[in-house]
Amino acid sequence: MKQIIIEKSIVKNNEELAKKNKDFFNNKKIFTINLLGSPGSGKTRVIEKIIGNIKKCYNMAVIEGDLYTAKDAMRIEKHNIDVIQLNTGGTSHLDASMIAISLQHLNTEKLDFLVIENVGSLVLPESYDLSEDMKIVVMSVTEGNDKPLKYPSMFKCSSAVILNKMDLIENTDFDINEFYRDVHTLNKDIKVFEVSCRDDSGIDEISDFLKEKIRNKKTY
Amino acid sequence: MKQIIIEKSIVKNNEELAKKNKDFFNNKKIFTINLLGSPGSGKTRVIEKIIGNIKKCYNMAVIEGDLYTAKDAMRIEKHNIDVIQLNTGGTSHLDASMIAISLQHLNTEKLDFLVIENVGSLVLPESYDLSEDMKIVVMSVTEGNDKPLKYPSMFKCSSAVILNKMDLIENTDFDINEFYRDVHTLNKDIKVFEVSCRDDSGIDEISDFLKEKIRNKKTY
Repeated sequence: MKQIIIEKSIVKNNEELAKKNKDFFNNKKIFTINLLGSPGSGKTRVIEKIIGNIKKCYNMAVIEGDLYTAKDAMRIEKHNIDVIQLNTGGTSHLDASMIAISLQHLNTEKLDFLVIENVGSLVLPESYDLSEDMKIVVMSVTEGNDKPLKYPSMFKCSSAVILNKMDLIENTDFDINEFYRDVHTLNKDIKVFEVSCRDDSGIDEISDFLKEKIRNKKTY
Repeated sequence: MKQIIIEKSIVKNNEELAKKNKDFFNNKKIFTINLLGSPGSGKTRVIEKIIGNIKKCYNMAVIEGDLYTAKDAMRIEKHNIDVIQLNTGGTSHLDASMIAISLQHLNTEKLDFLVIENVGSLVLPESYDLSEDMKIVVMSVTEGNDKPLKYPSMFKCSSAVILNKMDLIENTDFDINEFYRDVHTLNKDIKVFEVSCRDDSGIDEISDFLKEKIRNKKTY
C-alpha cells in the first residue's frame, strides 16, 4: 500500500485535470466509480465485501480518501488488491489533482476497475468531478430516511444508492416507502441496492451490477 | 419559525464577525453551543430531547443549519421554542456571518441558551469559529469506533461528545474501550455522554451539564 499525503490541493484547474484523467481511464478502458457517503455509512465495508466477487473476473484497485489515517487502506490491503491511501490533510473531499497524483503510483496496465472511496460526507463538493464513470452513494438506514431531501445534490448526481445496514432497519424509525418516494423524486433513474454487510444480503446484486458495467467499458 | 436562505457566504471576515457575535453573547450572557456531527448522527433528536428539561429553567432558542430544507426547524418548532432555519444553499457548514444574520431575527432580550445545529459533517471547516462557548460533537455508535482518529480536529476542539444510539451498540462491532482510549488520547478533557434517544438514557445528564454551564454564564 502506498500512502500519499497532499500538502496543498490544486483545485483551480480541476476541470482540466478531470478531463485528462477521464481520457486516461477511457484509453485504458478502466471502469471507475466515486464512492460517497457520510462517515460511518459503511463505504469501506461495502468495498471489502464486493472484492471477492469482482476479483474472480477482473483486476481491481482502490484509492482510499481520508483526512489523515491509513486505517481504511489497511483494511482493503488484507484482501490482496492494489490500494493507494490518499490523505487530504484536512480537506473534506478529493479532487481531480489528487486522483492524477494517485494514478502515477498505481499499476494501471492490466486494471479493469478502480474504486475511489471519497472522504466521508453527504455534501457534494464544488470541484466534484473526479473523472469517474459513475458516482455511487452509500447511506445506512440508521442515518434516517430524510437524508435524500436534505442532501439532494448527492442523490441527483449518483447512479446508484447502496442502502446499507438493512439488518438494523427494525430497530430504527426508517420509513422505506418515504425513502423510495423521495429518492426517485430527485432522480427517477437511480438504482437502489438494499444491503447488509452483516448477512451479505444485496452484495451479489451490487457485484453483478458492477461487473456488467466493467464488461461494457471493456467493449466500449 | 423564520427561514433564512444564504445566497453567498462572506467568509473572508469570519474572525472579525465571530468576535462581534462573541461580544454580543457575552454582553447578553447567552450560553451558546455549536452542535456538530455526521448526517444522521442524531443532532436534532438530541436537541428535541433536552428541550423539556432546559425550558423548565431557562429561555432557549435554536438555529438550525441545513443545506436547503426546513425539516429540522419544523421538528424543533413543535416544542414551542424560538427557532431559525438557516439554509446555506449548498455550503457545507455555517460561518459567523450566517450567525450574525440570524441574530437579527431572534428575540435575544431574555435568551439564556442558544443551540446552533451545524450542517451534518465530521470535518471541521477552516472558518469554524461561530463565537460559541462550546463545541459539542454528536456521533452514533452505528458509525463505528474509528471516527475520532479519522476526524481528529472535531474531537480535539469539542468540549463534549454525545455518543448516541447506545441502544444499538449490541448490534454493531463498536468497541467502546477503543473509543474511550482514542477520544481521550486526542482530548484528555473531553466529556463523554452515553445516550439513547429511544430510551432517554443520558438525556438528564446532558441537560444537567448544560444547565450548569448556562447558570455559570449568567453569573459570569
